[in-house]
Amino acid sequence: MKIETVDFFYLAMPEITTAADGSQDALIVRVTAGGFSGWGECEAAPLPSIAAFICPMSHGACQPVQNAVLGQRLDTPADIARIAHQVEYDCMDLLQAAHTWSGIEMALWDLLGKARGEPTWKLLGYDRSFRKTPYASQLFGDTPQGTLERGRRARADGFRAVKFGWGPIGRGALRIDVDHFVAAREGLGPDGILLVDVGQIFGEDVEAAAQRVPALEAARTTWLEEPFVANAYGEYAALAGRTRVKMAGGEGAHNFHMARNLIDYGNIGFVQIDCGRIGGIGPAKRVADHARAKGVTYVNHTFTSNLALSASLQPFAGVAEATICEYPVALQPLAVELTANHILRDADGEIAAPEAPGLGIEINPTALEVYRVEVEIAVGGRTVFRSPVAA
Amino acid sequence: MKIETVDFFYLAMPEITTAADGSQDALIVRVTAGGFSGWGECEAAPLPSIAAFICPMSHGACQPVQNAVLGQRLDTPADIARIAHQVEYDCMDLLQAAHTWSGIEMALWDLLGKARGEPTWKLLGYDRSFRKTPYASQLFGDTPQGTLERGRRARADGFRAVKFGWGPIGRGALRIDVDHFVAAREGLGPDGILLVDVGQIFGEDVEAAAQRVPALEAARTTWLEEPFVANAYGEYAALAGRTRVKMAGGEGAHNFHMARNLIDYGNIGFVQIDCGRIGGIGPAKRVADHARAKGVTYVNHTFTSNLALSASLQPFAGVAEATICEYPVALQPLAVELTANHILRDADGEIAAPEAPGLGIEINPTALEVYRVEVEIAVGGRTVFRSPVAA
Repeated sequence: MKIETVDFFYLAMPEITTAADGSQDALIVRVTAGGFSGWGECEAAPLPSIAAFICPMSHGACQPVQNAVLGQRLDTPADIARIAHQVEYDCMDLLQAAHTWSGIEMALWDLLGKARGEPTWKLLGYDRSFRKTPYASQLFGDTPQGTLERGRRARADGFRAVKFGWGPIGRGALRIDVDHFVAAREGLGPDGILLVDVGQIFGEDVEAAAQRVPALEAARTTWLEEPFVANAYGEYAALAGRTRVKMAGGEGAHNFHMARNLIDYGNIGFVQIDCGRIGGIGPAKRVADHARAKGVTYVNHTFTSNLALSASLQPFAGVAEATICEYPVALQPLAVELTANHILRDADGEIAAPEAPGLGIEINPTALEVYRVEVEIAVGGRTVFRSPVAA
Repeated sequence: MKIETVDFFYLAMPEITTAADGSQDALIVRVTAGGFSGWGECEAAPLPSIAAFICPMSHGACQPVQNAVLGQRLDTPADIARIAHQVEYDCMDLLQAAHTWSGIEMALWDLLGKARGEPTWKLLGYDRSFRKTPYASQLFGDTPQGTLERGRRARADGFRAVKFGWGPIGRGALRIDVDHFVAAREGLGPDGILLVDVGQIFGEDVEAAAQRVPALEAARTTWLEEPFVANAYGEYAALAGRTRVKMAGGEGAHNFHMARNLIDYGNIGFVQIDCGRIGGIGPAKRVADHARAKGVTYVNHTFTSNLALSASLQPFAGVAEATICEYPVALQPLAVELTANHILRDADGEIAAPEAPGLGIEINPTALEVYRVEVEIAVGGRTVFRSPVAA
């Protein structure tokens, strides 16, 4: 097969807020080759990601992503790795390229799996797709009472693990944060797995983060996610050395090496990979392998559609000991309606990467139209991008 | 002062080739505040960088760069740091933002310096701008004979230090590379400083790079630049442990931490910072401070105009012991004509960051028109960007 077309669909809710909710818009990719279609999703700003695909070349190491993709042979997983290498090299100086490529790479795995009649995790070398315990991923409440209620709701909804993120943590007095941690544990109940995500709020301030540690330990928090900016490995390692709460991070990694470095130098206990940013499923699988070798637990990072969720489950589907996974529970309508099928919890409350070929997720073409954002880009008087038609 | 306008000028040569020559196009930034104008340059793909400035918000941590910049107060260097922090936080998930912001940040230093009547290096806390020995930065020849001639030409042109980059190195037989290293040394003469840049050609293959080490040592190479992909710290450190040739790298860093990590974990001897990528002059100055503390030599990375060259000299202008600097000698006409004045070698063959206020470089408005690339971007039927008029 040869890669014939790559189309980008920019979708958005009618209104976008400053909430840390990544499901308010989406950039969906469709690739065609040999009579098959594959679908992927960039976890990225849509307009700059589209621009990185079609922009004029700046020089040999700053080429548009399309130059390394269109017309390429696609018959085996090795072809995907080869194209990935070409993108990495030819787009060395085009920063956004990794995010653009991530959605394309996913779509290539989906397409290849469909062509072969095999799920992506099988193409990755796994024998089976192990069930995972999904954690409800949601934001802290505006008040401790709000956090308490969200914890209770998640528990009532059958979740044994809950992650609370962002919100007021680190923005005001220590006392407020402590109250939220207490409320989260209370809402979740004594047996639940409590995960806390503070969204880089402490920048590189180890002491400010360390002040929260006693309360996090008292609440029996399993991990503290992204206390610092993504590349501050020294700070991650310093805090890790001061508490039994494990550090978690990695969603900011836009290549394999950044995630490896966070494991090797940041001393994290959980590595969280977003396939929509790291360059797709291939490099994520490499991270899963490296994590296993280092005794670090791999977890997906997913805050968008079930297409992205399926992709993010593939790299560690066959890792039996990686038992929990992120599961967004408060998606915007566009992210829900985007897919015709969904990855639902089974009777035991667990989920797994689909058994169906490719990513096992069907796109709902109506959603591509309903939430469509029209984009037109002209360079030098010539139209270089116009939003494609779904059908 | 308040930041009133930020304009992007996309310039390009009529024809762009795949040569590793970053001066074939340019993205110039003009900022106005309080009746002053400041100028900067992104070392980045123009179209995605423009898109990152004006794109619709995706969510609170994926906002367009303009949201954190327009209307902000600008009276002191601390204001620039404050805006930088806001960009970093609000654009956490917008990968291209660092490149977009880099040119804006430069322009803010230029503007602030003009408003205060002081050169940027003085605003950074330096007492004086030390002269540096410029190295002629050029590509390897297609053949060893071509490399020899380029070395001879640079020597005849009075350069005591020459960097050869990219070209055929690592693409064919070891013997070919060895011949190029021998030719480079011969062309440069026995006393010249020889620098070699292989542009990440070895990916993460330490053994392939190590095969070149004896020839690099025999040619008395001062540094080997970017043998591996930017974040492969373990590989940099492994090779550094096997040779007396120092490792050099850092141009790929798009924030302070990435450069710090390359120093702390990659065991490099020279850290090369491009102010047009790392987030501007402020984070570059932090790298210079960290390098000094660690006994690593700071060097600018510059392959574009003299506006970028001035910006890139500021962060280490006051560091007496950092004596060499990159000096592009084969710029395309647009990069030469872009500035009305140039940083020229003095009678001793040395250069220095200008004494004039700000960056000390005047833009030639004619070049903004001659090399102008017209861009128009519409989202949802509304024009969100149209190339500005220079005057």
